[in-house]
Amino acid sequence: MANQNNNIIEQSSKNNNLPKVFLHGPPQFSILLQPNPSQNFHILNPSSLPPLHEFISLNPDHASSISAIVCTTLYPVNADVIRLLPSLRLICAASAGTNHIDLSECRRRGIKVTSAGNLFSEEVADMAVALLIDVSRKISTANRFLRRQLQIASWDFPLGSKLTGKKIGIVGMGRIGLEVAKRLEAFNCMISYNSRNKKPLLSYPFYSTVIELATSTNVLILCCELNDQTRHIVNKEVMLALGKGGIIVNVGRGALIDEKELLRCLIEGEIEGAGLDVFENEPYVPKEFFSLDKVVLSPHAAVLTSDSFMSICQLVEQNLEAFFSNKPLITPVI
Amino acid sequence: MANQNNNIIEQSSKNNNLPKVFLHGPPQFSILLQPNPSQNFHILNPSSLPPLHEFISLNPDHASSISAIVCTTLYPVNADVIRLLPSLRLICAASAGTNHIDLSECRRRGIKVTSAGNLFSEEVADMAVALLIDVSRKISTANRFLRRQLQIASWDFPLGSKLTGKKIGIVGMGRIGLEVAKRLEAFNCMISYNSRNKKPLLSYPFYSTVIELATSTNVLILCCELNDQTRHIVNKEVMLALGKGGIIVNVGRGALIDEKELLRCLIEGEIEGAGLDVFENEPYVPKEFFSLDKVVLSPHAAVLTSDSFMSICQLVEQNLEAFFSNKPLITPVI
Repeated sequence: MANQNNNIIEQSSKNNNLPKVFLHGPPQFSILLQPNPSQNFHILNPSSLPPLHEFISLNPDHASSISAIVCTTLYPVNADVIRLLPSLRLICAASAGTNHIDLSECRRRGIKVTSAGNLFSEEVADMAVALLIDVSRKISTANRFLRRQLQIASWDFPLGSKLTGKKIGIVGMGRIGLEVAKRLEAFNCMISYNSRNKKPLLSYPFYSTVIELATSTNVLILCCELNDQTRHIVNKEVMLALGKGGIIVNVGRGALIDEKELLRCLIEGEIEGAGLDVFENEPYVPKEFFSLDKVVLSPHAAVLTSDSFMSICQLVEQNLEAFFSNKPLITPVI
Repeated sequence: MANQNNNIIEQSSKNNNLPKVFLHGPPQFSILLQPNPSQNFHILNPSSLPPLHEFISLNPDHASSISAIVCTTLYPVNADVIRLLPSLRLICAASAGTNHIDLSECRRRGIKVTSAGNLFSEEVADMAVALLIDVSRKISTANRFLRRQLQIASWDFPLGSKLTGKKIGIVGMGRIGLEVAKRLEAFNCMISYNSRNKKPLLSYPFYSTVIELATSTNVLILCCELNDQTRHIVNKEVMLALGKGGIIVNVGRGALIDEKELLRCLIEGEIEGAGLDVFENEPYVPKEFFSLDKVVLSPHAAVLTSDSFMSICQLVEQNLEAFFSNKPLITPVI
């Protein structure tokens, strides 16, 4: 590791005049999200290296050389991280959401932030529909059941329900919500939504509260961002309003749902099932979920396709190029 | 059992003047598919009873009293079964396909046959899309992986691929094929198809052979019926034409694919994955499938929802009522 670090320092000394960019994320991330070499910036750790904290403590002089970081949701960028990097001017999030970044601290220090913008809307919408059909039609359950039975294709658990005709309530009618609505319309589902504001161009019924939406639908699909207003937007009251045949799909952020109440409602049959790509305390998933056939679990994978890594890689590169050439950012958050 | 049979004979003797209908299927079937009591026919076995062969051998006098049977794909109605029932005049299949019924023998004996018609098209199309997203985005694999890992949401297997934009080849552009096309258009997939004939009203590209379709697409979805022309319509040559990134989804019948070649192509990486609701020798599923993460398996469950049982129950009843009132059948096959 010491050798590797020396190599980096040597490599970067060749690019001494270029602003330094640090890839702040788990090991596989540096490989998948590595921007192309550029004349305008220098990637400090193109191959897997120690995490930021360790890197800075091993190379304290480098702390003030880092102008930009690229980050995923897996490694938060809180005030502690930001304080480590006195020259930080840009944070490129490789995600649509930026709730893992302390935006107030960024604003205070004049640090710009970019996100994936709408780049992943289709993938996330695909995942929402996938989780909904899976829960409704028991695809993963049947697959697991068949593999366990070994060799006999039979069905020996409660029947699922038809997707066509279901009343779908979309929470958060941004780009992802719109893509979900478009897909589920093709299944002859009936769409309605809750959002900060009614969208004048949309003909879908609008409900100003999630509880009204839940009362009128069979399915809630959470596509909104996590903030102080949306934390636990799906609570016990909302789940009881959705009712016994109800399904909840979460492709937003775990803390949109009161996870303890969700578990209780699932176990006690207050709702029918759930498809969850996100969890309240990721990467930890409450073990009680694992014994429930009515839940389909996905490891925050809504954007994990080979295609999306290629796209975000390009977008991060474009944002870095724009920033270090003093051009407008492509997908600015602040 | 003897007692139960006596009861039936007693019950049916009360309805001596009514034509007798036998529910020919597995035990749970009689409960799920039981038509309402009628003034025009009498259901011989409304609760679970011995299978037809056993029933006839226990009650040989009853053989000639049965005018109609209701059947699923799980119990074939071959010439042997038909010969058991000299008074048989109607077979109501609770399925869209009738390849489990000896139609030639029925024609020869003047027996009418009805099917589920297009009743299940939406459910089957939903299943086709579900299997495709699942294989493409590795939903079942991720769910299984997460449950095995227990408590850590992570991703440690090859990335899936984006559904949006995929080139889809639909084999068999009947009602199910159309419903699949409609759904996948909403995912911005590009649809083309192979069918007995080009459909003049459809703008999707038509290919007159499956191999040409496979050459031009990433995904084959099999929605056609099984007959002498379509048996093994997907053979080694077709799979090699589909190629290494290719996915095959089968919601038709198992024997549409050469299953041995499919297994070989999957194991050797000649195609990317498969979503299979049907198998060549159901209910048996080749055990080699169980070790493959790139395959999603479903126990011939495309029509298994609580909603579809209610619908088919009604349709069977309507066909029986029509037949025994000398009215036109609702969904005649022959």
